[in-house]
Amino acid sequence: MGTAGESGGSTMQPPFGPTPGPLAGAELPSFRYPLGAQPTKQFDGGTAKEANVEQFPVSEKLAGVYMTLEPEALRELHWHANAAEWAYVIEGRCRVTTIDPENQVEVVDFGPGDVWYFPRGHGHSIQGLERGCTFILVFDNGYFSEFGTFSITDWLGHTPHDVLAKNFGLPESAFANFPDHEVYIAKGPVPPLPEDPTPGSLNAPPLTHRYRLLAQAPEPFPGGTMRIASEMEFPISSTMTGALLTIAPGGMRELHWHPNAAEWQFYLKGTAQMTVFGSHGRARTDQFGVGDVGYVPQGYGHYIENTGKDDLEVIVVLNNGTYQSISITAWMAGTPDLTLATNFGVKESIFEKMPGDAVIMPD
Amino acid sequence: MGTAGESGGSTMQPPFGPTPGPLAGAELPSFRYPLGAQPTKQFDGGTAKEANVEQFPVSEKLAGVYMTLEPEALRELHWHANAAEWAYVIEGRCRVTTIDPENQVEVVDFGPGDVWYFPRGHGHSIQGLERGCTFILVFDNGYFSEFGTFSITDWLGHTPHDVLAKNFGLPESAFANFPDHEVYIAKGPVPPLPEDPTPGSLNAPPLTHRYRLLAQAPEPFPGGTMRIASEMEFPISSTMTGALLTIAPGGMRELHWHPNAAEWQFYLKGTAQMTVFGSHGRARTDQFGVGDVGYVPQGYGHYIENTGKDDLEVIVVLNNGTYQSISITAWMAGTPDLTLATNFGVKESIFEKMPGDAVIMPD
Amino acid sequence: MGTAGESGGSTMQPPFGPTPGPLAGAELPSFRYPLGAQPTKQFDGGTAKEANVEQFPVSEKLAGVYMTLEPEALRELHWHANAAEWAYVIEGRCRVTTIDPENQVEVVDFGPGDVWYFPRGHGHSIQGLERGCTFILVFDNGYFSEFGTFSITDWLGHTPHDVLAKNFGLPESAFANFPDHEVYIAKGPVPPLPEDPTPGSLNAPPLTHRYRLLAQAPEPFPGGTMRIASEMEFPISSTMTGALLTIAPGGMRELHWHPNAAEWQFYLKGTAQMTVFGSHGRARTDQFGVGDVGYVPQGYGHYIENTGKDDLEVIVVLNNGTYQSISITAWMAGTPDLTLATNFGVKESIFEKMPGDAVIMPD
Repeated sequence: MGTAGESGGSTMQPPFGPTPGPLAGAELPSFRYPLGAQPTKQFDGGTAKEANVEQFPVSEKLAGVYMTLEPEALRELHWHANAAEWAYVIEGRCRVTTIDPENQVEVVDFGPGDVWYFPRGHGHSIQGLERGCTFILVFDNGYFSEFGTFSITDWLGHTPHDVLAKNFGLPESAFANFPDHEVYIAKGPVPPLPEDPTPGSLNAPPLTHRYRLLAQAPEPFPGGTMRIASEMEFPISSTMTGALLTIAPGGMRELHWHPNAAEWQFYLKGTAQMTVFGSHGRARTDQFGVGDVGYVPQGYGHYIENTGKDDLEVIVVLNNGTYQSISITAWMAGTPDLTLATNFGVKESIFEKMPGDAVIMPD
Repeated sequence: MGTAGESGGSTMQPPFGPTPGPLAGAELPSFRYPLGAQPTKQFDGGTAKEANVEQFPVSEKLAGVYMTLEPEALRELHWHANAAEWAYVIEGRCRVTTIDPENQVEVVDFGPGDVWYFPRGHGHSIQGLERGCTFILVFDNGYFSEFGTFSITDWLGHTPHDVLAKNFGLPESAFANFPDHEVYIAKGPVPPLPEDPTPGSLNAPPLTHRYRLLAQAPEPFPGGTMRIASEMEFPISSTMTGALLTIAPGGMRELHWHPNAAEWQFYLKGTAQMTVFGSHGRARTDQFGVGDVGYVPQGYGHYIENTGKDDLEVIVVLNNGTYQSISITAWMAGTPDLTLATNFGVKESIFEKMPGDAVIMPD
Repeated sequence: MGTAGESGGSTMQPPFGPTPGPLAGAELPSFRYPLGAQPTKQFDGGTAKEANVEQFPVSEKLAGVYMTLEPEALRELHWHANAAEWAYVIEGRCRVTTIDPENQVEVVDFGPGDVWYFPRGHGHSIQGLERGCTFILVFDNGYFSEFGTFSITDWLGHTPHDVLAKNFGLPESAFANFPDHEVYIAKGPVPPLPEDPTPGSLNAPPLTHRYRLLAQAPEPFPGGTMRIASEMEFPISSTMTGALLTIAPGGMRELHWHPNAAEWQFYLKGTAQMTVFGSHGRARTDQFGVGDVGYVPQGYGHYIENTGKDDLEVIVVLNNGTYQSISITAWMAGTPDLTLATNFGVKESIFEKMPGDAVIMPD
């Protein structure tokens, strides 16, 4: 009999149980899922590929979907009952509508490098603009699945017309041509953006769903840069932090770990290898290319190397709105050299040459 | 091997796992449990009927008990180790005592339409007044069970008299006539209410356990009214929101869902049907009468129709102190008509007749 | 299929599931684990003994390790991916280093009666001083295990030298003599304490990891005293509260329970018996001596008696940074005597002699 998690802990120390099965073996499983290489699910108006614990068992805390929408293709009004949704727009542009429990609606456009966040259960739709749109969706629940996605046509199509008539105050005939099944993606002209709301009007949402990640000045580190959107930069994003990591050829995102979050990655450009350290002498290196997904369990050590001749770009999403990271170099820089010499059984002088206090890598 | 929930999320985004078994099938299970029709557990002084996941598997997050107490019947001092307790008094009156970890005791009377909330693990007792009392209890844990209910006679009856003597600073003989088993319900005269505490005295609890729900001005919606007690109106109720829903004959509580909570219902008066929408073309309609219990999983769409000739009254309890609801009409009212026309594949003009911004339904 | 915990509750009402297996039987299991009597795991430089759910199945929410370090023995730099760490120093002294996600390092000494707290995932090391050090570690996860402990030599020893060279900006040869396996405990000279940081300098951690529990004036109760370190006294300790309980010969820690936490105990001095009450007429008394571990599930009643001729000392750790306790005497003192007379079926006069409002036991 399983016993569900229970803890008296604070929000920063969530409940937890035994080591998940995939991580309990003598050897670590693969932390790569070739999402791009999977067969594409084709719709009239778009495509989708999905990665959750069914396809990628180790990814218990986060799941993802790679999606394209043609021009004027509308991913219909829907909500997710079991996860919040984070997204990064890779190519093209789209127009998004959202509603929150205060009945505040936002209609806003997204372009390359823009990020959205929809809290769990909030309604939304996405429509491709001029040349369509390509984006990666990330959910803060590895068990995210179709059973948690609720579409408006699916619901209204399974609701008797007399109920709809009563609900909307219209004659039943108004619904005669409504579809009786889930539409998923529809096609049609794009409505104009609303005019700017009057200051103080009720229609202005208290928190915007859009963050322009690419417009942020990147934070440099040796060999690369990082742009980051945590709850601090993007207040509505209370359960996830997203980042765009760029690493130059030969560069490396140094050895580090995240004490408070698991990490889900999507490789946008270039080729890489990531090594994950899982204690007990267990370390595993996987090779990544464009379209691959990576995953790092909470607290597991890892580093990423650019193995190609071009810049590497990776989308990184953590399942915590507060960004926390600890690097080996910062740790060793702050620890007395004599302690390190004892710890490693080597001469103290080795550590004098290591980077000192002025660690400029992003942590 | 099961793996317990783990998440780096905030308090508004609790940990979650796979779709619960009862909800993972091709067809939805029943969301009705005929609590009133169950055999009554009879005590000397009262009666009880219980609904938890054992009887009603889908109700994973909330459980309930229907209870009656005769005049002077005392549901003895006890606490629940695994749930907070919410209650609505249906008939009659009772006198309640509570203690909290600051040793603050409240003794207070409840009558029809009053609500109480006892945080998890806080001690309390309930005694029927003049003509007894009937109430519905709701717990924020579907696994609530007798194994989580701790009674004072059960404990002291299983404690050696020399230990009791030491604990209370009294001779062992003082406990000679204490019961050696759980009393559960006892009968005896009702003590007077304490005089009003001196302002600023230590005995005044910081938060009262009583909220007079029926004294609240009801919020009207087309075809009915709602009274609501969330943490905002009733500050101690930090993990549950309760409401009394009244629907006129022919009326309907419109299509909506709760992004942040599951819902447990007790049908007080009238007859109804509730339809629950669970995605994937799965919708199920159940019939409800007086004494029935209903349940809606977090994020699932639903609507309730009064199918009788009299007013329908339903107690609704959600497992979150913050009330959130999104309705289909509000969502569609805030979404551009052209988007809706594309979404449903119908003419834009249909949506011009739908309710506009001035949505007055409760959300 | 297990379903993980899910709840819309607040931080004070964590998610929970069914009654854990060990507690669901007709009789309660033992709440004692003879940690001191287990075989010692011997290292070059120290020893360790561990208690988690594998050895002690009832201890689902907390685990512990008893450890000794010789003089100059260094428990190497490491972190725990699945638990925060609380400790009480029993004998001797040690020098501790820590790092947090803000790259703030603390180097600080601990002596007898000092307590530390390291948030989940934060790096730390511990080195024995003059005559070595003995301490008890407590983790806020009963599933704590070696699979969650990550050591710096284990990681660097499984990282190619060219990667280390790139990471630290040093030639590969610098790592020629680094160990290729986990060191766990090393031995070497102790570095001096850092000089006091300049006020306002970046190296001063915002919250200290040390609390001098023995320096606290003990709070007296009839027959004993208690010192306590909750988040209130020791702000970094946000997920655990620790206490040192002293009970005189013949004394007793009275009947009480903790509404918001499970309790893990380590018996430091003397002999005791603890009785745990688990509802349904289930009460169990176990005998405890020096080196034994005790456990009380959240919300379960319990009391501890000193059964020896000397003072009893117990370390008590709860898995919640907020300390909450309710005692039977306080509860009965605040409840009307007439209610108690009815509840127990005895004369009201018995309760007039019980302790009144002026309850001075710690709650």
